[in-house]
Amino acid sequence: MKAIVITIGNEILSGDIVNKDLAVIAQIAKEYGIKIQKEITVKDDVEEIKRALKDTSAYNIVLITGGLGPTSDDVTREAVAMFLGRELVFDDELFNNVKKRIKELGIKDNPLHRNYGYILKDCMPIDNPTGIAPGILCKHKNQYIILLPGPPRELEPTLKNAFLRMGFKKKSDGIVKIYRTFGIREVELQRAIDEMLKATSDTIEIGFYPSLYGVKLKVKYPDKKIMEKLERFLWEKIGENLYSDKDEELPEVLGKILKDKNLTISVAESCTGGLVGDLITSVSGSSAYFMGGIIAYSNEVKIQLLGCNREDLEKFGAVSREIALQMADGARKKINTDIGISTTGIAGPTGGTPQKPVGLVYMGYSDGQRQEVIKRIFKGKREEIKKQAALTVIDLARRMLI
Amino acid sequence: MKAIVITIGNEILSGDIVNKDLAVIAQIAKEYGIKIQKEITVKDDVEEIKRALKDTSAYNIVLITGGLGPTSDDVTREAVAMFLGRELVFDDELFNNVKKRIKELGIKDNPLHRNYGYILKDCMPIDNPTGIAPGILCKHKNQYIILLPGPPRELEPTLKNAFLRMGFKKKSDGIVKIYRTFGIREVELQRAIDEMLKATSDTIEIGFYPSLYGVKLKVKYPDKKIMEKLERFLWEKIGENLYSDKDEELPEVLGKILKDKNLTISVAESCTGGLVGDLITSVSGSSAYFMGGIIAYSNEVKIQLLGCNREDLEKFGAVSREIALQMADGARKKINTDIGISTTGIAGPTGGTPQKPVGLVYMGYSDGQRQEVIKRIFKGKREEIKKQAALTVIDLARRMLI
Repeated sequence: MKAIVITIGNEILSGDIVNKDLAVIAQIAKEYGIKIQKEITVKDDVEEIKRALKDTSAYNIVLITGGLGPTSDDVTREAVAMFLGRELVFDDELFNNVKKRIKELGIKDNPLHRNYGYILKDCMPIDNPTGIAPGILCKHKNQYIILLPGPPRELEPTLKNAFLRMGFKKKSDGIVKIYRTFGIREVELQRAIDEMLKATSDTIEIGFYPSLYGVKLKVKYPDKKIMEKLERFLWEKIGENLYSDKDEELPEVLGKILKDKNLTISVAESCTGGLVGDLITSVSGSSAYFMGGIIAYSNEVKIQLLGCNREDLEKFGAVSREIALQMADGARKKINTDIGISTTGIAGPTGGTPQKPVGLVYMGYSDGQRQEVIKRIFKGKREEIKKQAALTVIDLARRMLI
Repeated sequence: MKAIVITIGNEILSGDIVNKDLAVIAQIAKEYGIKIQKEITVKDDVEEIKRALKDTSAYNIVLITGGLGPTSDDVTREAVAMFLGRELVFDDELFNNVKKRIKELGIKDNPLHRNYGYILKDCMPIDNPTGIAPGILCKHKNQYIILLPGPPRELEPTLKNAFLRMGFKKKSDGIVKIYRTFGIREVELQRAIDEMLKATSDTIEIGFYPSLYGVKLKVKYPDKKIMEKLERFLWEKIGENLYSDKDEELPEVLGKILKDKNLTISVAESCTGGLVGDLITSVSGSSAYFMGGIIAYSNEVKIQLLGCNREDLEKFGAVSREIALQMADGARKKINTDIGISTTGIAGPTGGTPQKPVGLVYMGYSDGQRQEVIKRIFKGKREEIKKQAALTVIDLARRMLI
C-alpha cells in the first residue's frame, strides 16, 4: 500500500509551527505496513489543494491533514468535494454527535459549529475522540481519501479509527522492544550493542534515540527465541543502567519498585523547584507511595521546614553535599516516609561562581540506614539542568533500591 | 518572490525524524520578504526528485534541502543536474575548501569526501560554516535553484549565505507582536479580533495558536501608529485574559508582578504534585519572590504541614473548596510569604466518582486579606489536567494582583 500525505496549513508554510503531522502519520502507518512515499504541504486555499490532489493518482491512500475547522479559512472539505465532484451534505446524526462532543469538552455553543455537520456525499465520518472536527473517509475509484484533523493529539486517534474502519490490520513481523537507559554514555551503549550483534547472524534492526535524559533503544528481533538470547546479553552488558525493557519512564519504574517493597518516599527540592514531585506524580496511582515533599527554595525554608543546620548552611553553602543530605533526611523525617530524596544546585543561567558553576547539583538519598549523595555538573539551559537533576535523583533512588 | 521547498529524506517520510527544515527556511525567508508557497517531501531517489522539480516552474526560488552527503544514497546533486541538463564537474578550489573545513571540524579523512568537490556546471558553491557539505546556487532561466544541507544547524547559516550571494536584503515591513491569553475561548477571541479588524482598513496579518494552555496570537501591523491604535482595542476587548504582549509565559508575567509589588509567594500542591513550583521556578531569578512550598499529596501531610482541619477533610473531602483554601492559607503561613496558592483535585485516569469526576480541581489563593477559590473540571490526560490546573492557579494569582 502506497500512501501520500497532504498537509494543509498557512502556519506551517510561514514557519510559525513545525509540521509534526507527517511523523505522526508515518509512525502509525508503519504499524499497518503502509509506507508514506511523498508529502506535499499547501496553503489553506481551494485551488492549491485541488492542484495537490491531482498529483495523487499513483497512490492507494491519500491522507489529508488540517483545515477542518469551522471558520471560513478552513477549506479542506470544500476543496476535496470539488476535486471529487461530490456535494457537501448536512448530516443530522453527525452533527448531533459533534454537539455531544462539544458539550463533553465544555465548549460554549457557537453558530459556526454547524459547519462540522457537513460531510462529503457517500463518505463516512470518523470519530475524533480528542477534538471536535471529525475525520472523513472517502472511497474514490481504487483510492482511499482520508481527511484528518491537524493537531497531532487529534490526528493520532482519528487516523487509528480510520484504519480500523477500513479494516486494516496491524503487521506483526518480528518483535519490537524499547529499552530505556540512564547514566550510560552513548558510545558505551554502542559498544554493548556491537557485541550483542556479533553474537547472532540474524537481522536485528536497531534504533538509537539519545537525549539529555538518557538513551532510548528500539530493537526489532525476528522472533522471541532470538530476543531472549540477545536480551540476556544486553542486560549483562548494560547492567543497572538499563532501567526498563518496556518503554517505561523512570518515575514509573521507581514507582513499581516502591510498591513492590511497600515503601514510601518524599522529596526535598531546591533547584528543581517541584519538578521531582511532578515527575513522581506523573504516574497514576503514585499516591500509594508518594506522600509529598517540601520545596525549599529559600534557606529559611530549608532550616525551618527541613531542619537543615544554619551553621552548615553558612559554612558549606546551600549547594553542598552536607545540605543535600540534611534535606533528604529532613524530608524523610518531616513527611514521615521510608525514603527521602533531595536536590540542591544552580540551575542558571545566572548565579554561578568559579567554585560553584551553573549546572552544579547535589542530589541526596536517605532511608535512615543508608545515605548517599551524588554530585554532577549538568550542561544545558535552565530547564534542561532542572530536568537532568530531577531524573538523576529519581534514578539514584531506583539504584539504591534494586 | 514566490518560493517552493523540496525536502529530500527517507527518514522524514518514515517518521523517524520530524522535518524542521521547512520552519527554518520559512522563518529566514520571511525576513527577506520571501513567502514559501508550497513544500514537497520526497525520498532520496533520482526519479522522485526530478518529478518534484517538474512542479516548480511557477516559483522564482526553489529551495532543496537534504541528500548532499558523500555516500551513494545521497543523490540530490545528480538529480538536479539531470533535471537541468547540466554536468557535474569536479572543482579543485571547492574541494580544497572542503578539506580545510574537514580538518577544522576534526573529522577523519575518508576517500568518499572527494564527492563533496563535485558541483553543477555554471553554479556556485555556498559556504556551510557549521558542516562539510557546501550549498549550491544555480541560476536557471528566471529561477534560482538552491541546494542546501539537511541538518537545521547547517541549513540555517548556509541559506543566509545564499541569500547574501543573491544580493537579497532583509525587509523591515511592519511590526510583529505576539500576545498570549489565558481563560478566553477561541471563538470569543475571534470575535474580539473581528471587531478590531473592523476598526481599520489596513492589512493586518493574524496568526492563531490555540492549545489547552491558552491561545497565542501573532499580529503583524503595517506600522507603529496602527499598532498603537488597534492594540488599545485588543486590550479593551480581551481585558485581563490578555496576560502578555511580549510572548512571555504566565510564570514570567506573575514573577514580574510579584517583583514589582515586592511580594513573596508559596505553593501548597496536591494533585499537581510539584508542577506549580516547577513552573514558577522556570523563571531565572524566581528566588527573589518564590520561597518554596509543600507538596501535600497525602492527607496526613495536609494536616501536619499545612494545618488543614482533620474534621473538614473528613466532612468535605480533600478535593473541596474548604481544603483548597486551608492549603493556600497554610502554605502562606508555614512558608511565611505574602501569598499562598494551592491545588487539590483528581488528575486521573482513576480515582473519579460521579460527584467528584476525574479532572475536578479546586485552586486556592490567599494573601491574608483576600481569599479566592476557583473550581474547574479539566479534560485531557493526567499530565494535561495537571498542567491546566497549575497554569490556572498561577493565572489566578496574576488576576488577584493586577
